[in-house]
Amino acid sequence: MKIQSILLGAVLLSTGYSQAQTDDGVLRLTEFAYPVKRQLLNIPNVNGYQILKCDFHMHTVFTDGHVWPNVRIQEAWREGLDAISYTEHMEYNPHSADVKVDHNRSHDLAIDLAKENNIVLVKGTEITRQTPPGHFNALFIQDANALIADNDPKLDQAAIDKADEQKAFIFWNHPGWKATTIPGSYEWIDFVEKMYQAKKLHGIEVVNGLGFHKKALDWALDRNLTIIGNTDIHNLIAHDYAIERPGVHRTMTLVMAKDRSAAGIREALDAGRTVVWSSKYLFGKEENVRALAHACLAISPSYHEKTNGKTQDKTKYYEIKNNSDLYFELELKQGKGTKRLVLYPESTQILTAEAGQQKLSYEIVSTYIRSDKHLQFEINLK
Amino acid sequence: MKIQSILLGAVLLSTGYSQAQTDDGVLRLTEFAYPVKRQLLNIPNVNGYQILKCDFHMHTVFTDGHVWPNVRIQEAWREGLDAISYTEHMEYNPHSADVKVDHNRSHDLAIDLAKENNIVLVKGTEITRQTPPGHFNALFIQDANALIADNDPKLDQAAIDKADEQKAFIFWNHPGWKATTIPGSYEWIDFVEKMYQAKKLHGIEVVNGLGFHKKALDWALDRNLTIIGNTDIHNLIAHDYAIERPGVHRTMTLVMAKDRSAAGIREALDAGRTVVWSSKYLFGKEENVRALAHACLAISPSYHEKTNGKTQDKTKYYEIKNNSDLYFELELKQGKGTKRLVLYPESTQILTAEAGQQKLSYEIVSTYIRSDKHLQFEINLK
Amino acid sequence: MKIQSILLGAVLLSTGYSQAQTDDGVLRLTEFAYPVKRQLLNIPNVNGYQILKCDFHMHTVFTDGHVWPNVRIQEAWREGLDAISYTEHMEYNPHSADVKVDHNRSHDLAIDLAKENNIVLVKGTEITRQTPPGHFNALFIQDANALIADNDPKLDQAAIDKADEQKAFIFWNHPGWKATTIPGSYEWIDFVEKMYQAKKLHGIEVVNGLGFHKKALDWALDRNLTIIGNTDIHNLIAHDYAIERPGVHRTMTLVMAKDRSAAGIREALDAGRTVVWSSKYLFGKEENVRALAHACLAISPSYHEKTNGKTQDKTKYYEIKNNSDLYFELELKQGKGTKRLVLYPESTQILTAEAGQQKLSYEIVSTYIRSDKHLQFEINLK
Amino acid sequence: MKIQSILLGAVLLSTGYSQAQTDDGVLRLTEFAYPVKRQLLNIPNVNGYQILKCDFHMHTVFTDGHVWPNVRIQEAWREGLDAISYTEHMEYNPHSADVKVDHNRSHDLAIDLAKENNIVLVKGTEITRQTPPGHFNALFIQDANALIADNDPKLDQAAIDKADEQKAFIFWNHPGWKATTIPGSYEWIDFVEKMYQAKKLHGIEVVNGLGFHKKALDWALDRNLTIIGNTDIHNLIAHDYAIERPGVHRTMTLVMAKDRSAAGIREALDAGRTVVWSSKYLFGKEENVRALAHACLAISPSYHEKTNGKTQDKTKYYEIKNNSDLYFELELKQGKGTKRLVLYPESTQILTAEAGQQKLSYEIVSTYIRSDKHLQFEINLK
Repeated sequence: MKIQSILLGAVLLSTGYSQAQTDDGVLRLTEFAYPVKRQLLNIPNVNGYQILKCDFHMHTVFTDGHVWPNVRIQEAWREGLDAISYTEHMEYNPHSADVKVDHNRSHDLAIDLAKENNIVLVKGTEITRQTPPGHFNALFIQDANALIADNDPKLDQAAIDKADEQKAFIFWNHPGWKATTIPGSYEWIDFVEKMYQAKKLHGIEVVNGLGFHKKALDWALDRNLTIIGNTDIHNLIAHDYAIERPGVHRTMTLVMAKDRSAAGIREALDAGRTVVWSSKYLFGKEENVRALAHACLAISPSYHEKTNGKTQDKTKYYEIKNNSDLYFELELKQGKGTKRLVLYPESTQILTAEAGQQKLSYEIVSTYIRSDKHLQFEINLK
Repeated sequence: MKIQSILLGAVLLSTGYSQAQTDDGVLRLTEFAYPVKRQLLNIPNVNGYQILKCDFHMHTVFTDGHVWPNVRIQEAWREGLDAISYTEHMEYNPHSADVKVDHNRSHDLAIDLAKENNIVLVKGTEITRQTPPGHFNALFIQDANALIADNDPKLDQAAIDKADEQKAFIFWNHPGWKATTIPGSYEWIDFVEKMYQAKKLHGIEVVNGLGFHKKALDWALDRNLTIIGNTDIHNLIAHDYAIERPGVHRTMTLVMAKDRSAAGIREALDAGRTVVWSSKYLFGKEENVRALAHACLAISPSYHEKTNGKTQDKTKYYEIKNNSDLYFELELKQGKGTKRLVLYPESTQILTAEAGQQKLSYEIVSTYIRSDKHLQFEINLK
Repeated sequence: MKIQSILLGAVLLSTGYSQAQTDDGVLRLTEFAYPVKRQLLNIPNVNGYQILKCDFHMHTVFTDGHVWPNVRIQEAWREGLDAISYTEHMEYNPHSADVKVDHNRSHDLAIDLAKENNIVLVKGTEITRQTPPGHFNALFIQDANALIADNDPKLDQAAIDKADEQKAFIFWNHPGWKATTIPGSYEWIDFVEKMYQAKKLHGIEVVNGLGFHKKALDWALDRNLTIIGNTDIHNLIAHDYAIERPGVHRTMTLVMAKDRSAAGIREALDAGRTVVWSSKYLFGKEENVRALAHACLAISPSYHEKTNGKTQDKTKYYEIKNNSDLYFELELKQGKGTKRLVLYPESTQILTAEAGQQKLSYEIVSTYIRSDKHLQFEINLK
Repeated sequence: MKIQSILLGAVLLSTGYSQAQTDDGVLRLTEFAYPVKRQLLNIPNVNGYQILKCDFHMHTVFTDGHVWPNVRIQEAWREGLDAISYTEHMEYNPHSADVKVDHNRSHDLAIDLAKENNIVLVKGTEITRQTPPGHFNALFIQDANALIADNDPKLDQAAIDKADEQKAFIFWNHPGWKATTIPGSYEWIDFVEKMYQAKKLHGIEVVNGLGFHKKALDWALDRNLTIIGNTDIHNLIAHDYAIERPGVHRTMTLVMAKDRSAAGIREALDAGRTVVWSSKYLFGKEENVRALAHACLAISPSYHEKTNGKTQDKTKYYEIKNNSDLYFELELKQGKGTKRLVLYPESTQILTAEAGQQKLSYEIVSTYIRSDKHLQFEINLK
């Protein structure tokens, strides 16, 4: 209603279900109001680390996005994210006829709201060079306006150096973006190799929106670069993702952090402790994906045994639980037991196994620990 | 993804359900993508008029809204609306440090997109005077910048006159907005009476967002002013309304128009042929609500008769159908039959009646034809 | 609550949304109650025929199903079906230790409830022979108990003859049911050929539950047999189908009937006027699928034209509407226009085409007019 | 599909999302299949007790229910229940013309399936006397057939005694069932007083289905009887409850048990450690409701402080988390802070409080610790 402050802290609290009569002759018809809440994304701690849900790539009206900065905080709050980063394009400002260009502005406008909503706001920007080399995000910067906004290819290297001077965490965005229109752009190009050699490249965005850049995953794995996934959202999250359906979430980077803070995130990114979660899939280094899967999945002791009347074979019954909001799909590779297990968020399945076995070996086909490889996962039977 | 045009015409068409391998090493994980579509809001024609779904009150970043203008077209398209109007505040521009003030700009930026998406865009503005008298929307104007942006109370009348000079359709917004904080503001004040006498007031917004301004409905009915309902949306529609749930929709004005055009809407507004639809409720002049209900509800001939073994009473069975996306809730007032009927969108209920009756008299308790009066509705039994 | 009659006519009417205080010290907590209603499945008439939604294959506790007969009426009513048929196994009665065997009983128990709920109940049974030849449904019989319940293979032919004597409409169920366990059973076997020659085989169930029997579709097409699809439900519909999700429905046969009656259905089945609807797909004879698609899909006149600044190419804009609850997915085969159109239920998409064309040729990939062939569909541009 | 075993253990495992080609010419159209899973109902342990989700009142075709016994196991499994009890009417057998009367049969038919699905099956029955005194459930019996099935009022006391001989846990069902039709039946009648004195009455069903029997709650509290809530389901759970909507669940008794077993449940029932959960509400003894609320709700340390520019008042920000699938609605009674908090399942809200306070006092209006009293709940601020 009329003349609103962009501060939504207070607004978020005023919700309700049922029709309510106020004392002022205005009847509130609240049946169709959205139930405002911050939905928990449950993922258990992994090896003592908290799992922070982060999206490090997004835009607002201050470059080519469709929303005022506050909307990004609001979306993150509702969806249960811990941290986001505004990464406006340095070199691309299509709204400049209407909106004053200031590369720090979306961050600065949102910082108080982020604090009120308990969202960690990481200051960032998108270095938007022509492809190749394309786009790079620089996180943990101090002043975006001090970077280079001139898109002259001769300044590509200087643009990276400027970010590096601010001790940015730099990752290469969506390497396969123009794979079909600019041949040679979806390769491990010299420019990137030099960045890597100079330790100015720290990660690769292997999932951008709902696109999984397969080769990029392998590049990151081979060079021990941090694996990142983001929305790169320009429109509303609810436009691109069917987030109202149970189990649906935006693409994000799961950061295994010592604490819930910008510093905690930086330490984890530097150490490469990330897993990307997009659609039903997890992407990451084998050790990280394995640790995450082990934290989320639990097998019960056998609670029942059944003997086949004809063959006298014994079948044991177990319950396998997914105590997270992630999704796991397993296919049996070795042993005699349930061949396929779909572990929906916060649910269990019955697992049956022939008696006398110590373990079953599955492949979690909803994970990628390389572009062509799923995680092998052993289940010990008790 | 990166550097998007704000034109969403093309974007709207690129959708899909299942995971798809492109030829460029980028795997699309589309399970969680939003199924982009323009949802039909089915309401049958009424007395030969089309029912246009209209929202005549909304904001963008150009005043105090949270979105770029294109988002409003996108929302309207998805939700099946026919017409919208940008009504930026003339006298309130909290984003002026960042966004250049131009009261026509949101309309002008969106007009091409509206055409591509087959949305009727009615040029409008919100005359935002201090309360009282408060806010008025002026629709069908030519140039908002020619109106008065100075909030000096001495110019209140001049502001209205300027809009009238452009032959605007003018309605009073949310009369009860400051009922509790500014005593006397939620009354039929002199300023408004003068407008009415001078034929410069044509309608009243009796539902604003999810607030039903009860006294305002009666004022409109008593003076034959057009009854209007709008979202006055500043945030995302999906923030304020749970539109992903089946049956949930934004607040809107149903306009009974001769054709689907700006001119058709104007003619209908001038003629007062509107019903407001908000939450489960319909608000309007009795004749309009009645015509709408008759168009939407149909009773079948009796298809079954049952005789009570003990009393030999005969019960006849009918099917009552709601062939619209509206919601109707009926309570029996006269006759012997089903006491309560909830007619959800696009559904039927069984209605039983004692044999030998010609009709049943119900009250549609989900309608308001006055702040304290529901529509009486007779069902003829065959 | 306690001691209920199985008649649900009355129960169906007692519904509501909000918490209600009764006068007896019992507070009704109705927020979580199911909103009882008969959901319309909107499909427009086709060539003057009504589209009846029918499921001719289901079971109850009287053979190996999991529900009392009334539940099947209740499910059909809620889901908007017009007609169902109980088809209990003649030769398989695993509940006989607890439930008295009577092959007419489920029909007889439900007939009054069907009448009250305006559901057409077609009397049927499942002739359950060993595979091959397997199972056949006989519809429109008078007395199932007069048929043969002895599963001796020597009586296979006699079992069919008995049904034929009652002038049954007979179709072969799920021909590929035991394709992998009984080699040779999923073939056009002699037994079936003889039935066909003797005009005792009238249709084939090409979709059973969510299984599409591909070869069976071609057999039916080549011999002009009626194409049938059913649930063969044993469990709850809500167990096998995610019917609470918008757009999800059970497998059914769409019957193009002159009127909504058992006789109307019989005439249409004899004439072969059916299309099977399962998941997102339609299966049937080309003429029937084509007529259905034309009834459901409508293209608007062009409402907008845009000229490309560089090339001066003109693009015309159209709206294509799916005015049914079916789902259509189209891929462009000829002409210059939108390449892929997903027409969700009751929705529209924007279609763009290069100016100067008379038509575009699409393939509706969500239809099967042969196991390897989709419907070709021309869109005339205005 | 055809000839199914009623054992669903195996069936439950064979699920999936996407369309799959089998090798037998049958294409599986799985988009619309129900995603079979056991949904976790997350409620943290309370004072070291597990919270078992139990429904101790339900019917099958063996008396007047609509389903075969296996369906109740299937429903319980899907919904995340731990324990159920078949409580067929001893004295009411409307299906006896078709189904052989055996009061143990539904339990016996389901026991193996219960074991396979890891559901605790408590043997029970419903002693169905004329009202008054009405109906009583007897749990933990050995043989229902040894009880009295004769509905002669002179045998009312003997029927109870027979159950008591089997050391049953006995509770009075839905005391207000016939409040309006049998005056005097919804009172603390002599018959019940005698049972209570003789220690043959151990609990009261204060919520039956979606009906909260208000006086019954107070009777139980005043006499320290165990508070029970059940579905008393006859139809499908999905018929009476909108369980497909997020957050919707059947009515159940939350049992605070030492272990997940029949013995564990019995011990907890005897000790009165229960809370009833129905719709959005919790009902129980104050100490149990309080312990449950404290286990589910957590307040963070203050993470932000804001100073009002004009008044120099300081506001502190906290996050209040509901780490359960329950629902809590709080209204502020003392202190200066957020006035209303709606804590949806697995979500958080922002709580703001004026600086300098030690605590805020709320009332949890979604709880009943007496028919007219909600739980008072203090939040300590850090």
